[in-house]
Amino acid sequence: MKAEIITIGDEILIGQIIDTNSAYLGAELTRLGFEVQRLQSIPDRHEAIIFALNNIFKDTDLVILTGGLGPTRDDITKQSLLTFFGGKMILDPTAADHIRKLLKSRHVRLYERNIRQAEVPDSCQVLANHSGSAPGMMFRKHDKIFVSLPGVPFEMKDIFEHELLPVLQREFILPLRKHRTLLLEGVPESLAAEKLSQWEEQLPDSMNLAYLPSVGILRLRISISGDNEDYLNEKLNKATKELNQLFGSQRIFGEGTDTLQEIIGRLLVKEGASLSTAESCTGGTIAQMITSVPGASEYFAGSVIAYSNEIKIKQLGVAEADLKNYGAVSKGVVEQMATGVRARYQTDYAIATSGIAGPGGGSSEKPVGTTWIAISSKDTLVSAKFLFGDHRERNITRASITALNMLRIQLMRLR
Amino acid sequence: MKAEIITIGDEILIGQIIDTNSAYLGAELTRLGFEVQRLQSIPDRHEAIIFALNNIFKDTDLVILTGGLGPTRDDITKQSLLTFFGGKMILDPTAADHIRKLLKSRHVRLYERNIRQAEVPDSCQVLANHSGSAPGMMFRKHDKIFVSLPGVPFEMKDIFEHELLPVLQREFILPLRKHRTLLLEGVPESLAAEKLSQWEEQLPDSMNLAYLPSVGILRLRISISGDNEDYLNEKLNKATKELNQLFGSQRIFGEGTDTLQEIIGRLLVKEGASLSTAESCTGGTIAQMITSVPGASEYFAGSVIAYSNEIKIKQLGVAEADLKNYGAVSKGVVEQMATGVRARYQTDYAIATSGIAGPGGGSSEKPVGTTWIAISSKDTLVSAKFLFGDHRERNITRASITALNMLRIQLMRLR
Repeated sequence: MKAEIITIGDEILIGQIIDTNSAYLGAELTRLGFEVQRLQSIPDRHEAIIFALNNIFKDTDLVILTGGLGPTRDDITKQSLLTFFGGKMILDPTAADHIRKLLKSRHVRLYERNIRQAEVPDSCQVLANHSGSAPGMMFRKHDKIFVSLPGVPFEMKDIFEHELLPVLQREFILPLRKHRTLLLEGVPESLAAEKLSQWEEQLPDSMNLAYLPSVGILRLRISISGDNEDYLNEKLNKATKELNQLFGSQRIFGEGTDTLQEIIGRLLVKEGASLSTAESCTGGTIAQMITSVPGASEYFAGSVIAYSNEIKIKQLGVAEADLKNYGAVSKGVVEQMATGVRARYQTDYAIATSGIAGPGGGSSEKPVGTTWIAISSKDTLVSAKFLFGDHRERNITRASITALNMLRIQLMRLR
Repeated sequence: MKAEIITIGDEILIGQIIDTNSAYLGAELTRLGFEVQRLQSIPDRHEAIIFALNNIFKDTDLVILTGGLGPTRDDITKQSLLTFFGGKMILDPTAADHIRKLLKSRHVRLYERNIRQAEVPDSCQVLANHSGSAPGMMFRKHDKIFVSLPGVPFEMKDIFEHELLPVLQREFILPLRKHRTLLLEGVPESLAAEKLSQWEEQLPDSMNLAYLPSVGILRLRISISGDNEDYLNEKLNKATKELNQLFGSQRIFGEGTDTLQEIIGRLLVKEGASLSTAESCTGGTIAQMITSVPGASEYFAGSVIAYSNEIKIKQLGVAEADLKNYGAVSKGVVEQMATGVRARYQTDYAIATSGIAGPGGGSSEKPVGTTWIAISSKDTLVSAKFLFGDHRERNITRASITALNMLRIQLMRLR
């Protein structure tokens, strides 16, 4: 089964926004067993949309269009779809009702142009948009399925996951293809490749391994195709076990869409324990990650973001002499930050960070990227020094991820 | 003058990497006055490359291809270029010499496949790659210019800036096209469209307006073409002034690539003032945004992330009775949080947030999305209540952006 993706919008062509929708759809369609044979970005102009629709590859089975459906530019895309697929424009009553309720719940005034977003060609099947106002539309022509989705990423994903996915699984006989993705912290891609070169060589042809690196986290995706589900699952279980043996459970922290903050949340709830953070170089990023999880208030008390030395002394009880003698980025200071916040915020666990995120503040002794992280609990205090890189944003992200995994290792008693 | 961009590589089609090269080239070509009329991503297969080259729009003047030139997959792309443009493969002595020197300077062993990167069709003009091994290539056919660049972003940019740009400026008579983007906080797209409908109608044909919404921020981009730079600037200035009058400087916070956290940073530095935050529902997101700016330590002291009521009482001095009588999400509590952190962290300004991010915790009186924000300074205390939506992540983002803009309004004395 072959697919094409078309994104509509001048803002992509002029480089004002980076098209992340195509990557999402490319990954999802590949995972389902489609071969994505082309991505295109085109202007939101009638002729450009019609031209693209007229020039889909003959062997393409599925075309997904995104974008061009906001309240201010609805007309062009939908009129183009009407021209190409035929029919007449009608107001979809369910979609109109949904828009009224949605805007009411958001306390936003309803304009005529909002309701007009519920107008669709009657040649389409409406795909409900649970998190926005522009509905998705599905058309059939020349034995192909065409789908138009809004360009706002979370709306596009919502419709894809909840409305389109079941249709695709019903409509297409997709080859059986299974994936498992292991999540690793603290393993650079080149090191993993070195460690896995022999293991990769002995993989059967039906199985392959992809390296998906991002800042601080490496995902290893194993894919396998075949026709017996039990057999494929067995093979994936075996491969997963082997990778776990190679890297160990300190480095492999989860699978699939797990996040460190969710795993930590579950472990804290299970233990009935509470958490606080004292952050210097990460500046609130760890707290932000922890509180992004619904229900975090059950275990997260709060944080001291101690950017200045005064706050480290007054709010965390760090010894002034240690700051003077060893500097803020030191073992003694980060450990006092962790024990200090744990005592003052009365929690069972605490994370502390102190580092030089850059671009300024580095020295030959402590270059930009130098970071101390500590984890304090009732009976342990562990700390470690890291040397990340020379890029502020990446240093902050890596420090936050490393700290969360250090806490996970403590919570799982993996030490 | 019209342009197309083609990126070659399976890793883009399967969503393994996000194509940022196209956004860079799209922005650069637009800035130069090209109209980018299509982006495409295609697999690194001979037939796919030949098909794409054979199907360039008739009116396209410039085609830029990126990718497919690494040492492990050089052959397909270059053989395809040879097939399409004719000629024979030769070793470019300058490029070969450069590769030898480059690898020597990096203490990397030279393999046969490295030197073969200097092989190019003799139908091309070589564009030197100062920061990598694969050279760029420029071809002419059917009155169009075709350029092939490596896919590694910094190498692609290096060749574009230093080698290709002068050629483009010499070869093409480019129309003058200018853009200005205004950044608005707190204005939904539909409201802006309503407010601007008359204004848009009177715009000359040479000028157009695009709405680019994201969570909490709406960007309005005005574009204009012509041949007199002063005239275009004058028109853009006039339009900017009109939009400023329509929306006001409380809502329009910046232009282009400005961010609220950078603007606030500059204003605080100018005033020699310091800042702290007391965050409940935003859970550290405001601190994280503020500290993402290099040099934030100059004005940012730190934060109390007060997720639990105990922390609000003990670390910020919020009255227990108020928490009991009015709840954490109330005017009195958020104001005490702001004054509390300002006093304890001894800063000139403080931001406080308290809200129900969701999905749990809402009631009919205080639904999910209800958020109180306060700004405290030496002589003022302002607070306001907002009703965002029903999506946790977006509520947190909107609360953070709203809070930063409320602080900006105070810092600029716009009240």
